[in-house]
Amino acid sequence: MKALMKTEAKEGLELTEAETPRPGPGEVLVKVKAASICGTDLHIYSWDEWARSRIAPPLIIGHEFCGQVEEVGPGVEGVAPGDYVSAETHIYCGRCYMCRTGRAHLCEEMKIIGVDRHGAFAEYIVVPAKVLWKNDPELPVNIAPLQEPFGNAVHAVKRAEVGGKRVAIFGDGPIGIFACAIARRLGAKAVWLVGLSPRRLEVGKSLGADETLDASAVDPVAELRRLSGGRGVDVVLEMSGSPKAWEEALRSVALGGRVVAFGLSHERIPWDLNTVVFNEIEIVGVVGRLIFETWYETRDLLAEIDISPAVTDELPLDDFEAGFGKLFRREAVKVVLYP
Amino acid sequence: MKALMKTEAKEGLELTEAETPRPGPGEVLVKVKAASICGTDLHIYSWDEWARSRIAPPLIIGHEFCGQVEEVGPGVEGVAPGDYVSAETHIYCGRCYMCRTGRAHLCEEMKIIGVDRHGAFAEYIVVPAKVLWKNDPELPVNIAPLQEPFGNAVHAVKRAEVGGKRVAIFGDGPIGIFACAIARRLGAKAVWLVGLSPRRLEVGKSLGADETLDASAVDPVAELRRLSGGRGVDVVLEMSGSPKAWEEALRSVALGGRVVAFGLSHERIPWDLNTVVFNEIEIVGVVGRLIFETWYETRDLLAEIDISPAVTDELPLDDFEAGFGKLFRREAVKVVLYP
Amino acid sequence: MKALMKTEAKEGLELTEAETPRPGPGEVLVKVKAASICGTDLHIYSWDEWARSRIAPPLIIGHEFCGQVEEVGPGVEGVAPGDYVSAETHIYCGRCYMCRTGRAHLCEEMKIIGVDRHGAFAEYIVVPAKVLWKNDPELPVNIAPLQEPFGNAVHAVKRAEVGGKRVAIFGDGPIGIFACAIARRLGAKAVWLVGLSPRRLEVGKSLGADETLDASAVDPVAELRRLSGGRGVDVVLEMSGSPKAWEEALRSVALGGRVVAFGLSHERIPWDLNTVVFNEIEIVGVVGRLIFETWYETRDLLAEIDISPAVTDELPLDDFEAGFGKLFRREAVKVVLYP
Amino acid sequence: MKALMKTEAKEGLELTEAETPRPGPGEVLVKVKAASICGTDLHIYSWDEWARSRIAPPLIIGHEFCGQVEEVGPGVEGVAPGDYVSAETHIYCGRCYMCRTGRAHLCEEMKIIGVDRHGAFAEYIVVPAKVLWKNDPELPVNIAPLQEPFGNAVHAVKRAEVGGKRVAIFGDGPIGIFACAIARRLGAKAVWLVGLSPRRLEVGKSLGADETLDASAVDPVAELRRLSGGRGVDVVLEMSGSPKAWEEALRSVALGGRVVAFGLSHERIPWDLNTVVFNEIEIVGVVGRLIFETWYETRDLLAEIDISPAVTDELPLDDFEAGFGKLFRREAVKVVLYP
Repeated sequence: MKALMKTEAKEGLELTEAETPRPGPGEVLVKVKAASICGTDLHIYSWDEWARSRIAPPLIIGHEFCGQVEEVGPGVEGVAPGDYVSAETHIYCGRCYMCRTGRAHLCEEMKIIGVDRHGAFAEYIVVPAKVLWKNDPELPVNIAPLQEPFGNAVHAVKRAEVGGKRVAIFGDGPIGIFACAIARRLGAKAVWLVGLSPRRLEVGKSLGADETLDASAVDPVAELRRLSGGRGVDVVLEMSGSPKAWEEALRSVALGGRVVAFGLSHERIPWDLNTVVFNEIEIVGVVGRLIFETWYETRDLLAEIDISPAVTDELPLDDFEAGFGKLFRREAVKVVLYP
Repeated sequence: MKALMKTEAKEGLELTEAETPRPGPGEVLVKVKAASICGTDLHIYSWDEWARSRIAPPLIIGHEFCGQVEEVGPGVEGVAPGDYVSAETHIYCGRCYMCRTGRAHLCEEMKIIGVDRHGAFAEYIVVPAKVLWKNDPELPVNIAPLQEPFGNAVHAVKRAEVGGKRVAIFGDGPIGIFACAIARRLGAKAVWLVGLSPRRLEVGKSLGADETLDASAVDPVAELRRLSGGRGVDVVLEMSGSPKAWEEALRSVALGGRVVAFGLSHERIPWDLNTVVFNEIEIVGVVGRLIFETWYETRDLLAEIDISPAVTDELPLDDFEAGFGKLFRREAVKVVLYP
Repeated sequence: MKALMKTEAKEGLELTEAETPRPGPGEVLVKVKAASICGTDLHIYSWDEWARSRIAPPLIIGHEFCGQVEEVGPGVEGVAPGDYVSAETHIYCGRCYMCRTGRAHLCEEMKIIGVDRHGAFAEYIVVPAKVLWKNDPELPVNIAPLQEPFGNAVHAVKRAEVGGKRVAIFGDGPIGIFACAIARRLGAKAVWLVGLSPRRLEVGKSLGADETLDASAVDPVAELRRLSGGRGVDVVLEMSGSPKAWEEALRSVALGGRVVAFGLSHERIPWDLNTVVFNEIEIVGVVGRLIFETWYETRDLLAEIDISPAVTDELPLDDFEAGFGKLFRREAVKVVLYP
Repeated sequence: MKALMKTEAKEGLELTEAETPRPGPGEVLVKVKAASICGTDLHIYSWDEWARSRIAPPLIIGHEFCGQVEEVGPGVEGVAPGDYVSAETHIYCGRCYMCRTGRAHLCEEMKIIGVDRHGAFAEYIVVPAKVLWKNDPELPVNIAPLQEPFGNAVHAVKRAEVGGKRVAIFGDGPIGIFACAIARRLGAKAVWLVGLSPRRLEVGKSLGADETLDASAVDPVAELRRLSGGRGVDVVLEMSGSPKAWEEALRSVALGGRVVAFGLSHERIPWDLNTVVFNEIEIVGVVGRLIFETWYETRDLLAEIDISPAVTDELPLDDFEAGFGKLFRREAVKVVLYP
């Protein structure tokens, strides 16, 4: 089969022929219909420090996808060929303390699709049945792969408890943009998106932000204070991982407010502890999705929210370089590839 | 009256004669029976950067105290001469958004006794009736002033939700030590105190720590991992404000665990964001005491917990230099002064 | 001044001349601009068992109002003649355990305007300054009195935590109707209103219910199961106090769901304990409004939600009999009187 | 093998020979070492209405047990012959909405050991591997079966959030008695046990109750008010299911307090709705154990709490009639049978 692979320990990816996999016990073979590119895929392409420490070539990458079940391995129940599915990316062990206490998304033995095992930028993928999700049959093929990153945003917004609150989102990547739509639907009083890309801020506005702030042009702290009538924002969703955004987030958030930490950083953040203490700020780390609570919530939300404006590019897998290029240049929001 | 005062904008304090104050409308005059020295008082003594920016001499300092009501100003109800009282240090306005939504301890117009108005290291003090607390008549005079810092620890431990949990406390100051006793009484599975002073760690053990770790002699992260069977501690109470402690706290806390931020730092903390995100850690800033919920809880706890081992020194106000000296040299835990 | 009064211990009310009151210390005199009729006023009019046990004639009734400050008593700060105000109906003592722990709405010494002291169906009313609320200047005079019952609904909906949830509201009185609008604005996935009056159900639909169910025509349990895809509703707001509604609520709510108890009943409810236990249902009693958290939330919500369809009748105070009559016959939702 | 069975649809049980079962795929065969009698077993013995509607003879009953793994079926990982195990009684499906959202103890397709399939009052039992729990090797054989009912109490006490609280427990059955020990260990300010059997109240006191109240001799409401200084108890654990206890619970609990509903009743409870509403009481239904969070908590607690006083009787399986008899006459707390 055709597959997009990190074949060697260096920059770039290669479109190659790979052997079509077969499902083992408890596994399922899925014919991939569409798969979208995630920031993680960009790190692997670039072969940055994180990628070098984590990825063992040869590896087919890609983890946001949808497809049709082709074959079911031994011992699998409740799944049948023809089912229209996506998958939770985080393969939990089911036996560790975290898995057995309802927090499988923090599994101590986590394996990640397209990182620790072959991924979805290929004609076929094999995944354990336990991470399969049966898609709403109405969900378009170019939207279904986005359930995974949209689910990140759902999980983050739920932890922010936005109902009736003034919400600021730092970071205009896809997940920040999705968070605008979700916060609005879940009853935020106001949603203000802070970012750096006029194009992406515009998509954020079309998806639900009341106002957008270009952090290269205005002072987000002053603007958020003004917009919130001086009190500061009730919750911040920090989705950029930038030290500057953290500085601004802690100065923008109201007394007793909450900051959801989602964006990652490869450096330490110089962190203003005293503001956290004196203002009794809560900081809540959020990763992945609740398995499968977030998927049910995602299904409900995508039945109402049209995120197609975030799908800025759709390409055959063969044109993957064009898609990766647009993302590296921040010209795209989400790129969907068709194998 | 006799009063311990910052008379000039320089290091040190002066024991002087001051005019005995009179209670205005809504105020109460209290004859001070005992007052204890807080870390804040050390900052004011030293005249460090924070003190220089906040304190306007001449000022009588001191805010942890108990005494007897001597006179009641106009419009005060429910308080009478002879009442045995202490006071919440944080004078809230009662009219701002935070006060009107049940969070007066985060008042936007907060004034602090002994910082923004005359304090308790004197024969008499005037305080607004609204911050008075009627002490349990059984509470010894040398313990009643400690309700204020003990209350800090109560508020912090309550936010840590310690029941059944493995708890690490970083910081062997008085509040860290009190937190040991409180966490134990509120049902922690285990309480481990991390500090630097063998003397204070010993007091912590006598008050309820299961184990103490001298961070200058052992690696707290390795020890806490070992003590918790590899899983890490469920909650950390960070009461030191040290960058090293923060580093260790984030590496010691379990997946999905909580860190209560109480200790202050005048520098930025180089903060490991990725650990917060990947491990879904919650960080909860805590300051002061809930007004007056924490005082009720403090009353309940002090009816059972004997914190007298933490009162290492009791001196007449005239010997204040000896008390401050012992605290600067970390030879004392709490010093109580008698005017 | 003109005043609507329960003059004698019997059915009915009398429009009489009363002495214009003067504000004492801590009090404020308000010239009433508008006042709306509450269900409590109907009980007092009818002189039912509850009214007989609680009300001591002569008493001016009415507690939902707005007006202009006319005169300020001694010791009042932050209020001035001309201010456009309403008031929290529950006069809390400020000194009991509940008041001092942030739950003044459960004050142990509560006095209620128009029940325990003279009310607002008059040209003037005196209220303690501490319960005054400064209205948004944009808020219409016929809406401002409704902040009080609307606030009941806000408090109840907040306790229901409706974001993303399927919500059923039992009871088509004004508060059930307001709850539809609030639940929708705070992000409910769906809002289903169950009631008995086609007229009121229609108002509920115009204010935000997705579907309405006439409990005299259909089986609400079957319908709610169907609408929720078999799973049951995530939360019920029980605002009727009827035994039949409680029976249906417990059979409609999902496993692990929540029922907010707001409606009152003068009889015992035959309650299906086993369903509560086996399905781990949470039942949450809700009364009044959080003082003043709910008022801030109400201000935010009324800046966006138009509840004027619920004001079905506006009358001069002289025509009070017409207004009470319509409410007794359930022909009106809210009736606003102008003194 | 020897097995205690409901052979026919009538009162009583029969000790018979049964075929030793074999483990199917995903199952495990356990040699039973000890098994304790639960209230459910008494219902099945008596053949009451519930039993007649639920139990299909022939059925081996019993579900609280421990034993040694004898044989492992196909596809089972992480379990080996010789393991010392007990089991979660509730066999969850793993595929329904509740299971997939972290609430397997509320599974929509629940099967119960000893109720819906053969149980543990036999020499051998087959259980699905997914419900197995590996016991602490130090845990005595006569205590290990009690993890299941003790776990009920753990789950209930955790939901009560007892740290620093005044706690009343209604019901002096084994689970009420265990709850005394757990509430004490998890930091309750005070634990008061209300019951009817002097013998059982005494066991409750030996396990941690501060005071016990014989509801046939004193008025629990008056006593609980007195013990709590007039304020009422902060939380009630209702573990009796009796209408009288519910009446007393709602009148004993403080403003804003919580009642955990655990005890079952075959009749409707005449329920005082207005008290729930006016006092903003929370009622929280609790069933089973969190799978497996409660089991970890149970392990931690039983490493410290000695519940052997609750094991009042230990008998060979052959003497089952003696054990059941003592329980029917309320002369025993827990009876352990050895096959």
